[in-house]
Amino acid sequence: MTRVGVVGASGLAGGELIRLITQHPDLELTFLGGSSNIGRRPAELHPGLRLDLGLTVQPVTEEIAGQVDAVLLATPAPVSAELAALLADRVPAVLDLSGAFRIRTPELHDRWYPDVKRRTDLADRFVYGVPELVGDQMADAALISLPGCYATSMTLALAPLTLGLGLNLKTVVVDGKSGSSGGGLHLRTADLHPLRNGAIAPYAPVGHRHAAEVGDFLERGKRGGVGRLSMSAYGVSHVRGLLTSSYVFTDESVDQRELQRAYLRFYKDHRFVRVRRNTETLIPVPDPQAVLGSNYCDVTVMHDEDGERIVVLAALDNLVKGAAGQAVQALNIRFGLPEETGLTMQPVMPA
Amino acid sequence: MTRVGVVGASGLAGGELIRLITQHPDLELTFLGGSSNIGRRPAELHPGLRLDLGLTVQPVTEEIAGQVDAVLLATPAPVSAELAALLADRVPAVLDLSGAFRIRTPELHDRWYPDVKRRTDLADRFVYGVPELVGDQMADAALISLPGCYATSMTLALAPLTLGLGLNLKTVVVDGKSGSSGGGLHLRTADLHPLRNGAIAPYAPVGHRHAAEVGDFLERGKRGGVGRLSMSAYGVSHVRGLLTSSYVFTDESVDQRELQRAYLRFYKDHRFVRVRRNTETLIPVPDPQAVLGSNYCDVTVMHDEDGERIVVLAALDNLVKGAAGQAVQALNIRFGLPEETGLTMQPVMPA
Amino acid sequence: MTRVGVVGASGLAGGELIRLITQHPDLELTFLGGSSNIGRRPAELHPGLRLDLGLTVQPVTEEIAGQVDAVLLATPAPVSAELAALLADRVPAVLDLSGAFRIRTPELHDRWYPDVKRRTDLADRFVYGVPELVGDQMADAALISLPGCYATSMTLALAPLTLGLGLNLKTVVVDGKSGSSGGGLHLRTADLHPLRNGAIAPYAPVGHRHAAEVGDFLERGKRGGVGRLSMSAYGVSHVRGLLTSSYVFTDESVDQRELQRAYLRFYKDHRFVRVRRNTETLIPVPDPQAVLGSNYCDVTVMHDEDGERIVVLAALDNLVKGAAGQAVQALNIRFGLPEETGLTMQPVMPA
Amino acid sequence: MTRVGVVGASGLAGGELIRLITQHPDLELTFLGGSSNIGRRPAELHPGLRLDLGLTVQPVTEEIAGQVDAVLLATPAPVSAELAALLADRVPAVLDLSGAFRIRTPELHDRWYPDVKRRTDLADRFVYGVPELVGDQMADAALISLPGCYATSMTLALAPLTLGLGLNLKTVVVDGKSGSSGGGLHLRTADLHPLRNGAIAPYAPVGHRHAAEVGDFLERGKRGGVGRLSMSAYGVSHVRGLLTSSYVFTDESVDQRELQRAYLRFYKDHRFVRVRRNTETLIPVPDPQAVLGSNYCDVTVMHDEDGERIVVLAALDNLVKGAAGQAVQALNIRFGLPEETGLTMQPVMPA
Repeated sequence: MTRVGVVGASGLAGGELIRLITQHPDLELTFLGGSSNIGRRPAELHPGLRLDLGLTVQPVTEEIAGQVDAVLLATPAPVSAELAALLADRVPAVLDLSGAFRIRTPELHDRWYPDVKRRTDLADRFVYGVPELVGDQMADAALISLPGCYATSMTLALAPLTLGLGLNLKTVVVDGKSGSSGGGLHLRTADLHPLRNGAIAPYAPVGHRHAAEVGDFLERGKRGGVGRLSMSAYGVSHVRGLLTSSYVFTDESVDQRELQRAYLRFYKDHRFVRVRRNTETLIPVPDPQAVLGSNYCDVTVMHDEDGERIVVLAALDNLVKGAAGQAVQALNIRFGLPEETGLTMQPVMPA
Repeated sequence: MTRVGVVGASGLAGGELIRLITQHPDLELTFLGGSSNIGRRPAELHPGLRLDLGLTVQPVTEEIAGQVDAVLLATPAPVSAELAALLADRVPAVLDLSGAFRIRTPELHDRWYPDVKRRTDLADRFVYGVPELVGDQMADAALISLPGCYATSMTLALAPLTLGLGLNLKTVVVDGKSGSSGGGLHLRTADLHPLRNGAIAPYAPVGHRHAAEVGDFLERGKRGGVGRLSMSAYGVSHVRGLLTSSYVFTDESVDQRELQRAYLRFYKDHRFVRVRRNTETLIPVPDPQAVLGSNYCDVTVMHDEDGERIVVLAALDNLVKGAAGQAVQALNIRFGLPEETGLTMQPVMPA
Repeated sequence: MTRVGVVGASGLAGGELIRLITQHPDLELTFLGGSSNIGRRPAELHPGLRLDLGLTVQPVTEEIAGQVDAVLLATPAPVSAELAALLADRVPAVLDLSGAFRIRTPELHDRWYPDVKRRTDLADRFVYGVPELVGDQMADAALISLPGCYATSMTLALAPLTLGLGLNLKTVVVDGKSGSSGGGLHLRTADLHPLRNGAIAPYAPVGHRHAAEVGDFLERGKRGGVGRLSMSAYGVSHVRGLLTSSYVFTDESVDQRELQRAYLRFYKDHRFVRVRRNTETLIPVPDPQAVLGSNYCDVTVMHDEDGERIVVLAALDNLVKGAAGQAVQALNIRFGLPEETGLTMQPVMPA
Repeated sequence: MTRVGVVGASGLAGGELIRLITQHPDLELTFLGGSSNIGRRPAELHPGLRLDLGLTVQPVTEEIAGQVDAVLLATPAPVSAELAALLADRVPAVLDLSGAFRIRTPELHDRWYPDVKRRTDLADRFVYGVPELVGDQMADAALISLPGCYATSMTLALAPLTLGLGLNLKTVVVDGKSGSSGGGLHLRTADLHPLRNGAIAPYAPVGHRHAAEVGDFLERGKRGGVGRLSMSAYGVSHVRGLLTSSYVFTDESVDQRELQRAYLRFYKDHRFVRVRRNTETLIPVPDPQAVLGSNYCDVTVMHDEDGERIVVLAALDNLVKGAAGQAVQALNIRFGLPEETGLTMQPVMPA
């Protein structure tokens, strides 16, 4: 059994990590950390999880080194930056779910995360990316940075074009739509149910930092490339799950059949990515409700004759494949377990 | 491996059975039956379940006897009545999720299910009830009838009073609130999203047959008893999960402390019933969102000084503990597996 | 034009008052009061109301006497108790939407509102009730206390039984279901969208003070009477509108036909109460979505043979007939206008 | 009083027309037409509208000419094409809410509406467009075609750029998000509440015909122009209201300040278009919940430095400004009434 600590245990991603780890056959939850709710049990903080784990939330000190083989940081980026410095080289594996170490290029990091001071030497050691693309690097990494929920979706949507087909994407316009759990449980008036329900909230119509994260990552990739990449993000009226729509303009010629084949080929060894046709089932897909609670990302690619563009849709559960599930997937790879261990639950639908 | 067939594979309960059986370590899905959608694969009918099981929906004939050790009927009551007659004595175990065999008393059955003609000899052989109460009878039953979703909730709420404390419940008023999945996927205008969303729909303000089912069952129980039992049912604006509120008037004296103890004692060996205090966590419980996707039923009992009454709230996922999960629980018992096998998934919350 | 001031202008009821008063042909909004958001314009506080009224939120002093003919207090009960003392006898009409003056019996008030110290002489002068029942007293009242949202619904549901038919109601069990706007816009974790959406939240399973308010009021009424009256309240997954279900047990004999007639007769001169049959339209009614945005209260009465009980359902928009609309209705009566002036908007459905 | 007939009285737009016309001071509803539900009263078809108008749904014949001054067609496009031929020159004003006469260019019409055969001479006589842009032509038009809900939003979003600033828009990518009422009340499995709630449904990821409609219209406009215009449409988890996001690429230089000024100037005489800043109120705007039930269209324009693009967001209530309200607005203009008559209701929010 690999002993795992979760820090940021009170938050939504923290709760989801507890859910997944306690269901996992080869992981044992041995530490719960946080800066608030010290001394409280998970059941008080996560209404669904009435588990008696014998654990309460504790402050993080370097002494946890003896209790864990891996630590998952589901903390705000500034906290992750500090904790990574504390725990690196003391704990065999540190996996960070925040934005602290996602953008490698220093100037880009400073622009999008001006409040996050991180050690440069640490930043250089982090392996960042979706396990489908950088799994081999994760296998022996001491420090792993997981992509943001939107970034995971966008990367899985665009990688088959740039890395698979080697296309140069001149202009990419991403429209992201997310449920309210993407924003966490912060006390903001606009997030109260009366104002958030029924909303289409343009909360980041320009300047979402996940676009920078994806651009920075794809730039480092070998083939094709991405020119102008912009993103807008909206909150819509459900809780869990997101969809990104990537509208892609390229000067290169490619048709529907080639696209479909390329996506199937690119993901043929990756069970968590399901390449689907828009009309293959009762409801149009991809739709995040069809992946709810699971680690799947559903992807659909279409060539739009009228718009002379490629449309790539990708849906995932922001708390699973977009956060906790992907972290466990990385942890599996890091500790030599089959990638899907403990992550084989099917979507709960309808919900 | 126990070989299982699911009939009514296109419906919501059918889909949920497929989800649970394919995740179950000791069950193998070997047959999918139905009267519509013949030849279609599960993935076409259940958008979340993109599984390649090598099965398509087939008509049910007596020849399935060779392919299965157990059949689960997630069919309308009239169809279940027919199929039970066909399959009884041909298949080792037939479990029916419909109302066809729930009410034992013939006059009561005929009143509440006038359209369901069933063989009396068959009806007498069915073991009916929640596994927590009749598990020992299920262990060697060839025919099992599972309670309705509301009935499961009401039975688990009231049994500790009548069977545990032996109270005589003079008047019980049940108010049931359910999400839209309780109504299945039938093409009715009132169930279209624009008319169903935001609704509090009094769809069965009087005369819900689950009340008759529970009354009939509790009458056969040994201690205490239930006098006047009435129920009203409402559709509220979410998809999955229900809550029943049982308002109980009794002439016998009992206080909050005795009630709480009695419930804890009654369910101490039953992991799927979680006896909870209303304010024990972040949100008031029981709330069906805290059991979503799981086989739990959360129960809270309160003595209301002002109203001179007992209030018992019970929440469950109508498609899991109220249908497919409970059926798998019964199947486990029937085939000698630990009751919780394949049902240990934690709730997916928030969702 | 009657000049009106609204205090508590930042809240949901305050916003609804602004909406209704600015649409009203005979009322002029001349003052906006509050203790927070001083200096802010309505458009900043109420996203839908982008109105240029030339008003900003101001503290309330006795000097507003010169600016208004009536003041509407949409403030918390303790604040209303203070402001009523300040404004009574200085402003021709003070209408309070809070609970400060709803319960007349002093001991009952102190029990249910221990934190609300009110002047007894003032309390005795307030006219309390729904305009349908106490409109004649409102016509020349200087001080008016409007019922709570649930209390309005329960009173309109029960009055035809006690005051109309003169029945003695031995036991009344009320189950109230409300959208999230009933709780206002307070920063509570349980009211954040991720935790409140999809919920059936038993937030007041025992001891809701609206029951005390209704009991106190009906006790003062002349005929019939109410014995044991208890209430439980639930938050369900929409924003606006509530339904109360009153389950009534009486020893007196009455059938469906008498009940229906009695309700039609009782409300024949009251256009805002619509007596409806459960199945008269596309969806089961009463359903609060069918009164959304309007001042209607839809009422359905049924005799339940099985339960030997009467079931009365009443639905209203908690921010209109349950708050701001009812206050404007009272204001109309107070200032000699036809009761429905400015309140003739039809429901916005579906929404 | 102008006598008005509504055809397609059973549908959602039909119901909304009834709501608005019965609240209108200068319009009288004198005819309700349809092909189904003959003989039924509006209250049976529209649960919120319990009105006694003395009207039932009737088949449309040329004899209605004597009963109405104007007819509003809220019918499917093929039906509108037929009825327009029947009623033109018999009724002083025919206003069509369908797509039958929206696209003027014959080849484009035939491509996007292959099932709609219309008389060419009639098509040429229709005035099409949003009243803000073609109001002067509507003033004496006998035949008026109202834009689709998305098209209204897109046109109001883009016109200040092309017609106001005279920009040439090289590439426009539109992402439209709509509630479920946009799809009407058709019995489709995917529109049942269990499958539609919680969804982000990519129902028209490529090839939405509203894009063709807007392109055709803007082409006929005088200044600037639109190059490549493509659209994708999604159903999100609420009922009423839509948002379009127009991502615009142009080679011409323009900054945030110029854009904001241009939009304010362009709409300064048009009260139904509210030019708003994204962060001006409690929630990010434009958000359709802030226009619910009203005839407003909220518009926000932003220059995105990173993406070298212009982002224009426009939100409206698809049943009001996107259908019935806009039709009444056109009717007002046609009959010489102030444009806003009967349309001054403020948004119902939160709902």
